[in-house]
Amino acid sequence: MELLEQRILTDGVVKEGHVLKVDSFLNHQLDISLLNEIGREFFRLFQGEKLTKIVTIESSGIAIAAIAAQYFHLPVIFAKKAQSKNIDGEVYSSVIRSYTHGNDYTAILEKKFLGPDDRVLILDDFLATGKAQLGLLDIARQAGATVAGIGIVIEKGFQGGGDHLRDAGYNLKSLAIIDEMSPDGIIFRR
Amino acid sequence: MELLEQRILTDGVVKEGHVLKVDSFLNHQLDISLLNEIGREFFRLFQGEKLTKIVTIESSGIAIAAIAAQYFHLPVIFAKKAQSKNIDGEVYSSVIRSYTHGNDYTAILEKKFLGPDDRVLILDDFLATGKAQLGLLDIARQAGATVAGIGIVIEKGFQGGGDHLRDAGYNLKSLAIIDEMSPDGIIFRR
Repeated sequence: MELLEQRILTDGVVKEGHVLKVDSFLNHQLDISLLNEIGREFFRLFQGEKLTKIVTIESSGIAIAAIAAQYFHLPVIFAKKAQSKNIDGEVYSSVIRSYTHGNDYTAILEKKFLGPDDRVLILDDFLATGKAQLGLLDIARQAGATVAGIGIVIEKGFQGGGDHLRDAGYNLKSLAIIDEMSPDGIIFRR
Repeated sequence: MELLEQRILTDGVVKEGHVLKVDSFLNHQLDISLLNEIGREFFRLFQGEKLTKIVTIESSGIAIAAIAAQYFHLPVIFAKKAQSKNIDGEVYSSVIRSYTHGNDYTAILEKKFLGPDDRVLILDDFLATGKAQLGLLDIARQAGATVAGIGIVIEKGFQGGGDHLRDAGYNLKSLAIIDEMSPDGIIFRR
């Protein structure tokens, strides 16, 4: 997605430790016009998949999923991190290792919101090693739901998680795939 | 907001400890059509305020703020909870006591996204004692930004945080205010 790649080149900042900061438009401050273009592109890519729900995980995936869901006319469910007083015992859960924070957390999703009749699209802002996506795939498997697609805004191709999911047969589409990055520049996959 | 009150009566569940679960449409599963009506109503209420940014806090406020921002054509900034490897040292921060989780957390927002020229609208899903809103007000004060309005989807009027903010002179509008609730019923403020 040309518009997105240009924005990453203009406003993204590469930091030590394979960190790409895009917090001026994607995951701290949100450029809602850009999110609309992203949502429109996800709709173009996945509109034929007979989806029933869009699934993401807090927090950075929520705005992307909510804006995209307007094009699909579907509800969003976001998995939550860790246990909250507001969550019933009746949840699916999966332990996820966070690359960003360097610790483990548990993703939970109430059972009543996902079942065997569902065909879901998983949306998220980043895919690196793929740990968060594997957690959501695990939750979908527990629910008996079909994962009809995975849509990612920025894939760090050099970390291998995306290719692993493609090799496993998932219908994964990333709007920008970074094959190399350093403070000197970013090279996108063609 | 009649549509919202009806939805709370239909799908909200009152639990022990003054907990109102609206997770089937507002903060776990998201009814995007309803969020659009909520966003439209916030725009009607605050469109004259010469706003520059919409501010919220992760996670439940994000979808509400992102959808509403489409009507205002403004960027959203969401404050994050606790420290992350992706956040620079240059942040505003405020300690907030969580009623839902019964613990303290620190809300942080990068300084580069908010300054003295900003007139912000704070949006959130719930207002109870007002602790989260006071944290965002504290961050806005540190930034020298003007808080031109506070928009809340559901105010638990019986917990007093909303009236405290009104008494302090804030332009607070809540789309539904609950004055009493129990497993037997919910009474809205007229």
